[in-house]
Amino acid sequence: LDSGTFKQVRRMLNGLTPVKIAHLLESSPPQTRRALWRLVDREIEGEVLQELSDDVQSQFLRHMDTQEVVEITEGMDTDDIADILQQLPDQVIQEVLSAMSDQDRRRVESVLTYAEDTAGGLMNTDTITVRPRLTLDVVLRYLRRHDEIPESTDSLIVVNRQDEFLGLLPLGKLLTTDPGVTVREIMDTEAEAIPATLADSEVASLFERHDWVSAPVVDAGGKLLGRITIDDVVDVIREDADHSLMSLAGLDEEEDTFAPLMRTTPRRAIWLGVNLITAIIASAVINIFEETIDKVVALAILMPIVASMGGVAGSQTLTVVIRGMALGQIGRNNLRWLLSREFSAGMINGLLWALVMGVVVSVWFEDYTIAVIIAAAMVINILTAALAGALLPVLLKSVKVDPALAGGVALTTVTDVVGFLAFLGLATYFYA
Amino acid sequence: LDSGTFKQVRRMLNGLTPVKIAHLLESSPPQTRRALWRLVDREIEGEVLQELSDDVQSQFLRHMDTQEVVEITEGMDTDDIADILQQLPDQVIQEVLSAMSDQDRRRVESVLTYAEDTAGGLMNTDTITVRPRLTLDVVLRYLRRHDEIPESTDSLIVVNRQDEFLGLLPLGKLLTTDPGVTVREIMDTEAEAIPATLADSEVASLFERHDWVSAPVVDAGGKLLGRITIDDVVDVIREDADHSLMSLAGLDEEEDTFAPLMRTTPRRAIWLGVNLITAIIASAVINIFEETIDKVVALAILMPIVASMGGVAGSQTLTVVIRGMALGQIGRNNLRWLLSREFSAGMINGLLWALVMGVVVSVWFEDYTIAVIIAAAMVINILTAALAGALLPVLLKSVKVDPALAGGVALTTVTDVVGFLAFLGLATYFYA
Repeated sequence: LDSGTFKQVRRMLNGLTPVKIAHLLESSPPQTRRALWRLVDREIEGEVLQELSDDVQSQFLRHMDTQEVVEITEGMDTDDIADILQQLPDQVIQEVLSAMSDQDRRRVESVLTYAEDTAGGLMNTDTITVRPRLTLDVVLRYLRRHDEIPESTDSLIVVNRQDEFLGLLPLGKLLTTDPGVTVREIMDTEAEAIPATLADSEVASLFERHDWVSAPVVDAGGKLLGRITIDDVVDVIREDADHSLMSLAGLDEEEDTFAPLMRTTPRRAIWLGVNLITAIIASAVINIFEETIDKVVALAILMPIVASMGGVAGSQTLTVVIRGMALGQIGRNNLRWLLSREFSAGMINGLLWALVMGVVVSVWFEDYTIAVIIAAAMVINILTAALAGALLPVLLKSVKVDPALAGGVALTTVTDVVGFLAFLGLATYFYA
Repeated sequence: LDSGTFKQVRRMLNGLTPVKIAHLLESSPPQTRRALWRLVDREIEGEVLQELSDDVQSQFLRHMDTQEVVEITEGMDTDDIADILQQLPDQVIQEVLSAMSDQDRRRVESVLTYAEDTAGGLMNTDTITVRPRLTLDVVLRYLRRHDEIPESTDSLIVVNRQDEFLGLLPLGKLLTTDPGVTVREIMDTEAEAIPATLADSEVASLFERHDWVSAPVVDAGGKLLGRITIDDVVDVIREDADHSLMSLAGLDEEEDTFAPLMRTTPRRAIWLGVNLITAIIASAVINIFEETIDKVVALAILMPIVASMGGVAGSQTLTVVIRGMALGQIGRNNLRWLLSREFSAGMINGLLWALVMGVVVSVWFEDYTIAVIIAAAMVINILTAALAGALLPVLLKSVKVDPALAGGVALTTVTDVVGFLAFLGLATYFYA
């Protein structure tokens, strides 16, 4: 690039909002991404960084020294600073913290105490608190002394002298009530505060269910620590929903679409390796029936159909159950009903397509024995698949294995093995 | 149930929040669900109904008459009423509308003009508007005349006499600025309004990118129609994320986990039928090589491995690309880079596992020819799978077919056909 074009590109880029710059960076291959990042103005670097997904963030952070990290995090929200620090080596974290003002350090440290995937890790410390005995008039005057109110503030938080959470004062109520009334009289004491140790997906479902915009976070003693805002919760919802999709393909939900080759290849290699083992197990099953196949070669032609139909039927059930579990809908009392529905659906669809396949095979091979065998094997495998698809995720979860990650492979192993066993086993019986 | 227990259950149920009742209903099989629904108090029926997913909502709505629908929608937000009406037959819609007050009818009709999956269909008409020439003092007094402010109101909307959108007045600014200042002086004129025809997934990405809590909706002439709030956007985000997951298994993203048998079976049957066709195509390919398999039965034992490894490699690429497309990250300029990365990743992982499999087969069958053949076929199929996984969604989208729905089947067809062709074709060449 000559320097004229260069300047023009820089001006165009920095004319965009930080949000758009972040989207552009995330939509670029690594080299372009690095080149664009170098063109971003110093003053907005921090804002852009905040908008990037963790995976992309860390790609840039790795190349920064402590001083740069200190500069870039200046003026950021405490939860965003904590997010960024969590991706750095311990030593750099300490250096960055010691470069902060006492107050900021204390705030960031309080967020860092909690794991990234808990309410404490999600929270921000920019709360505006009021005492219950104040009149609204005093509260309004107190607010007017602020230059601005933190974003997504829909309520002020009411606390006592010990900073213990008492309730919420919604701005809507503050604005529509007579100024002579006290906070205590109109505050919402039914409002729930979130314990700092609550898992982030639980936080997300609380927000979703109650249509919250922000919510207070408290420690075990009920003391106010900070608040969580909907924009951070939306990220959690997106990640949770991504998790099932990406895990079923053995990928990380944080995966950057334009991750460099050497970053994306190893994880995929492991998954292919796991699959190779299950595929070899399926082949070992076929191997048992070598003689039968040698006698009736049509079996080799047809056997993938039985395995494949079981795989598809099972993955439908698996997907419904994994999503239901992610939404917290599946428990002991409804599992039985779910199993019986899946069994019935498997029976109906198994019989339907077994019949169709029986007719196709009769016409294709003009052999009624093999038509009956494949129909019977399909019913057996589709039924097994339905039950396995419903039970595997529950079993995996009970032994603390992620159903979204392991469910797909476990299911394919079952449907391949049962499919080949049923089809070739029946054939051996009839043709022996 | 005797009447004592019955009363107790009813009391417990109605003691829960509408949100929790809705979650309980969604986590129940059909019969329990209907029984519980009958126990819900009349006064909160509407609130509970609103919290249910469309699929479950419509199960209850089907059994209501016009009068019941009128009663239940009383006091609901206009967008929620529109949501419910859209699931009813045209005649019932007309009857419900004519039972409403003039003002309510006009509002609901304005939402109904727009498709459910657009900004217009998502919007609510409960806006609070102010004129630019007013002082903040007047605005504060105007607000105090309201009993309450609509939920998720973080800004008042500034309009002119013709109701055309001019800008936003954030409550935070209203509360921190001197009351003598006019709206015009502090209103945010950079704030974007959303066109009513914008697709809901675009609306969601605007909200996500800008961390909005609510945003105004305008018609083509810039006239204010209503506003969209984050709680409705969260539902869109959840549905969009669900879409890829559910579609890949041939399911509807609205699917109720506890859908009755007769509702869930037909859709799954269609998907199994589509898969049966692709499986038969794969079998037809194997059929071409009948003679070779008859000669070397080990081919039948090993061929599923080649197809399966291609399937897994392809689905990894497919998942990354489908998610990238859903996030709006993939376009003409970066597709080439993506293809080349997938090609390289496929080459590396293909060679790695082909080598491993070659060794396994040499030991297992003590036949070096077949070891070389399976290794070569695996490399070919994994490479093809990587390219197909990246290109198929783009091709499908360009012919306006949903990549999430059709991508998986199309990919399996490719990896099965190419896998069997490569493996059995090479074997025919070497053993003929």
